[in-house]
Amino acid sequence: MASVSVDDAMRRAIALAARGLGTTSPNPVVGCVLLDPDGEVVGEGFHAYAGGPHAEIVALAQAGRRARGGTAVVTLEPCDHTGRTGPCSHALLAAGVARVVIAVPDPNPVASGGAATLRAGGVDVELGVRAAEAEAGNVAWLTSMRRGWPYVVWKYAATLDGRSAAADGTSMWITSEAARTDVHALRGTVDAVIAGVGTVLADDPRLTARNLRDGTLAIRQPLRVVVDTFGRTPADARVRDGAARTWVATAAEVGTGPDGRVDLPALLAELHHRGVRAALLEGGPKLAGAFLAAGLVDRVVGYVAPKLLGAGPTALADAGVGTIADAIDLEITDVTQVGPDLRITALPRKREG
Amino acid sequence: MASVSVDDAMRRAIALAARGLGTTSPNPVVGCVLLDPDGEVVGEGFHAYAGGPHAEIVALAQAGRRARGGTAVVTLEPCDHTGRTGPCSHALLAAGVARVVIAVPDPNPVASGGAATLRAGGVDVELGVRAAEAEAGNVAWLTSMRRGWPYVVWKYAATLDGRSAAADGTSMWITSEAARTDVHALRGTVDAVIAGVGTVLADDPRLTARNLRDGTLAIRQPLRVVVDTFGRTPADARVRDGAARTWVATAAEVGTGPDGRVDLPALLAELHHRGVRAALLEGGPKLAGAFLAAGLVDRVVGYVAPKLLGAGPTALADAGVGTIADAIDLEITDVTQVGPDLRITALPRKREG
Ligand SMILES: NC(=O)c1ccc[n+]([C@@H]2O[C@H](COP(=O)([O-])OP(=O)(O)OC[C@H]3O[C@@H](n4cnc5c(N)ncnc54)[C@H](OP(=O)(O)O)[C@@H]3O)[C@@H](O)[C@H]2O)c1
Ligand SMILES: NC(=O)c1ccc[n+]([C@@H]2O[C@H](COP(=O)([O-])OP(=O)(O)OC[C@H]3O[C@@H](n4cnc5c(N)ncnc54)[C@H](OP(=O)(O)O)[C@@H]3O)[C@@H](O)[C@H]2O)c1
Repeated sequence: MASVSVDDAMRRAIALAARGLGTTSPNPVVGCVLLDPDGEVVGEGFHAYAGGPHAEIVALAQAGRRARGGTAVVTLEPCDHTGRTGPCSHALLAAGVARVVIAVPDPNPVASGGAATLRAGGVDVELGVRAAEAEAGNVAWLTSMRRGWPYVVWKYAATLDGRSAAADGTSMWITSEAARTDVHALRGTVDAVIAGVGTVLADDPRLTARNLRDGTLAIRQPLRVVVDTFGRTPADARVRDGAARTWVATAAEVGTGPDGRVDLPALLAELHHRGVRAALLEGGPKLAGAFLAAGLVDRVVGYVAPKLLGAGPTALADAGVGTIADAIDLEITDVTQVGPDLRITALPRKREG
Repeated sequence: MASVSVDDAMRRAIALAARGLGTTSPNPVVGCVLLDPDGEVVGEGFHAYAGGPHAEIVALAQAGRRARGGTAVVTLEPCDHTGRTGPCSHALLAAGVARVVIAVPDPNPVASGGAATLRAGGVDVELGVRAAEAEAGNVAWLTSMRRGWPYVVWKYAATLDGRSAAADGTSMWITSEAARTDVHALRGTVDAVIAGVGTVLADDPRLTARNLRDGTLAIRQPLRVVVDTFGRTPADARVRDGAARTWVATAAEVGTGPDGRVDLPALLAELHHRGVRAALLEGGPKLAGAFLAAGLVDRVVGYVAPKLLGAGPTALADAGVGTIADAIDLEITDVTQVGPDLRITALPRKREG
């Protein structure tokens, strides 16, 4: 195999890392490429699931003695602590790696320190190569680790005129099977799915990640969270079936916010504590409004159906905006056709002041 | 110049035709390319404005004697009647053209017959080359001529959650200057701009096509139409200023529909009679709902701003849809980023039954 540049190796490591998306949580996704002293690829690895070997360990196992004197290219700072696996910093030292190139430092206070340990062991450590790209691949995990609460994606489905149901309440189906399949794939990449008790009472959704055609469940199911101030979720609600874990988050357990309902920052802190790094907020309109008003949404994913209703409930309510100057500003980052529908992805702009 | 194929010449003719868009009404856009017997381009023309020479005449003038024995490639069947200019069929015969290749037959009963006249004169006439493409370039004119009422484009501006104003009624500006400039360009391509009296009373809009930066008016202004059952448009409404012609269409003049308001099919028939081929329906929500409910919208152009409001009036109201199965189905044909906003173009699907 021809020798590759460190930059190319990092691109490859980032692509490898992405393969773990949805199965590594509460760990990050990580990719690693090992180069021998001639710059030839001698090992590759990614972190595939929580509890499984780290990317560096997989790559080192593949490289064996060929790693000696070589370069490890990793998307995230190698860990320095003994968790379910031993510290990667020590493994890299033991393998005799001469240089470690890292895209992003580890924000996790428990695991960080790998770079320092490596340097102390005489390894040449370089940080920041393709950092933005590696960040993007790990954005949910990095964001949540840095600030201590989950990365929240608000997903909604609506018609072109912003309705989430018709005047008589019917909404099956606003969006196409292709769009709904996409939502189930999205559920498969997060650790929790959040809905308001209003949605549970109105629609009795399952909130599982499953195959829409045959109903089979994805192997890994996100935690189902119902935000339910007074515990009104019925005992026989589908969300309480055995298909996945469920948490009915009441004010009694979580705490009460200024509006007398479940305290949302406390809810998110508790979810973080339970290992939730990425959460999918699936509505309804009132809970989404409360999250948006509190600035707790990190990404908006709208499935917009090419339909017009002209009446019926809207996809978003009560977001605390009274006048146009206070509108919640977003930046559209992607528009993709999903079947006949559009999937619009947007990021809230940080507010000044 | 090298010789070109008839197919290439038609592509060129269609591109030429498009240059007339917005200034030829109530005439269609037409493009013509003349090839000499060797297939070399010897003349090109398009219809630039109503009252000006037809495309064939422009091309023939350029070609002179070189048209003899050649081929005329035209996007629309050459006219056969003496209007403001003489019949193009006669001009082509007089020039000694041997073959005429036409994309689309003329649906206008007054002007059609050109192909027959040419054939009777011994010219080889071929119809249907790149017909779909030529149709698309003339869709408003062809549609309106075939059925006797204008092609209606409904334009709206809304936030991602379907609001056209905030809770307090403020709406300046939901969309960006880039999007508003695009709307003024759109106004420049139609013969009439239609608004409901509700919008006139609420916003007092000018409804002119103008340069947003310096306020200068476009040379050609669409007819401003206010749909106003009882003639409530104030005498000093901006829409009545001298910047463009205005028609306040009352029920007394147009007729009353089953709901006691201005009869919309009668309104469109009268607009057609007044030479309007393409009309831009600019709202508001109620009038748009009435047009959509009656199946009178041919194209939807939505300017969607990356903003969320969660409250405030919606872009569409009362479209006669009560349940999800009756939703007005569209097909999205284009999504373009205009400044920070999205412009979504969609066509209503024909309803069965
Ligand atoms: N189109 C879509 O994407 C979509 C998605 C989901 C749902 N929906 C539709 O939305 C409808 C339900 O809407 P909804 O707005 O009533 O339901 P919702 O947003 O699911 O639930 C709202 C309820 O959540 C509870 N809640 C607890 N803490 C809260 C807090 N801090 N802030 C706000 N709410 C809090 C409140 O009830 P308590 O005070 O009792 O706790 C509140 O009434 C259904 O018809 C469903 O079909 C649409
Ligand atoms: N976001 C956007 O793109 C946009 C565009 C335009 C306006 N707007 C907003 O829309 C608001 C006004 O909304 P609106 O719905 O009240 O106004 P509208 O749709 O402009 O006007 C509705 C009025 O038109 C008259 N009308 C006459 N014949 C009709 C028919 N056959 N069907 C329906 N209506 C007929 C009716 O009043 P009569 O019975 O008295 O004739 C009716 O109340 C304003 O606040 C404006 O800002 C938004």
